[in-house]
Amino acid sequence: MNVAFINPFIAALTNVLKTMAQTELKPGKPSKKSDTKARGDVSGMIGLVGEELQGSLSITFEQGLAFEIMNRMLGEKPAELDDEVSDMVGEIANMVCGGAKQALAEQGHEFGMATPIVVSGKDHSINHLVDGPKMIMPFTNEFGNAYLEICFNK
Amino acid sequence: MNVAFINPFIAALTNVLKTMAQTELKPGKPSKKSDTKARGDVSGMIGLVGEELQGSLSITFEQGLAFEIMNRMLGEKPAELDDEVSDMVGEIANMVCGGAKQALAEQGHEFGMATPIVVSGKDHSINHLVDGPKMIMPFTNEFGNAYLEICFNK
Repeated sequence: MNVAFINPFIAALTNVLKTMAQTELKPGKPSKKSDTKARGDVSGMIGLVGEELQGSLSITFEQGLAFEIMNRMLGEKPAELDDEVSDMVGEIANMVCGGAKQALAEQGHEFGMATPIVVSGKDHSINHLVDGPKMIMPFTNEFGNAYLEICFNK
Repeated sequence: MNVAFINPFIAALTNVLKTMAQTELKPGKPSKKSDTKARGDVSGMIGLVGEELQGSLSITFEQGLAFEIMNRMLGEKPAELDDEVSDMVGEIANMVCGGAKQALAEQGHEFGMATPIVVSGKDHSINHLVDGPKMIMPFTNEFGNAYLEICFNK
């Protein structure tokens, strides 16, 4: 997967969180992920379907960062990782994927997005079943980390 | 969601497990799912994208049933819920979804499939973010239960 594919997702994630939750996240270095361990507590996932490519995206948040984003969006910090947090993570995944989809369409790469599925649970694993490499991109601020995973069947 | 949409998925799941793993599963009654608790230990998920519909599917297995299916397919019972089990659950989700896709296409309902994502972990939750109802269908045999969840944005 070339960098032209990854950058729109990185830009969309930092932009969505800045706009929606006044949250600045510092992106780290993308790398290949070879294990299936989720790096956080709640993951929003979206299936991607194009004529020539299929793939999947996940955005995993550590609980502390997810709670702070809820706090900034709704003015109240949740007490537990409940369905409201899960809904928010799904909406963030949707907005990030939609932003990247638009940027990639302008470069001639069209794909459709499935509806998000959000999974939560301590020590869950995420196994993207694709033929291509699985890329993981870390993001961080003082409240915790988030991890964007993306992969395509190519 | 009408029953014409659900039945091809039920038929595909029983058929795939019978053919691939000589495993008979008895389907129970479909119902609406209103919580987000996963009913098992490992879930294969696939995003669905059509021109007029989007949605998501998940198939969750209790560990005992997943292990017995591995045993029948590979002749060896796994010791833990590892990536091999996870890969198998993703392949099953892919085959079930592919079977239902073909049956639904013959009825004029076309959709594309994303690549599978498999999540595992004790007490994980699955939150499908759609506007429409979320249907859950139980399947059972003497080794345990499986649960097919499907929903569309309609």
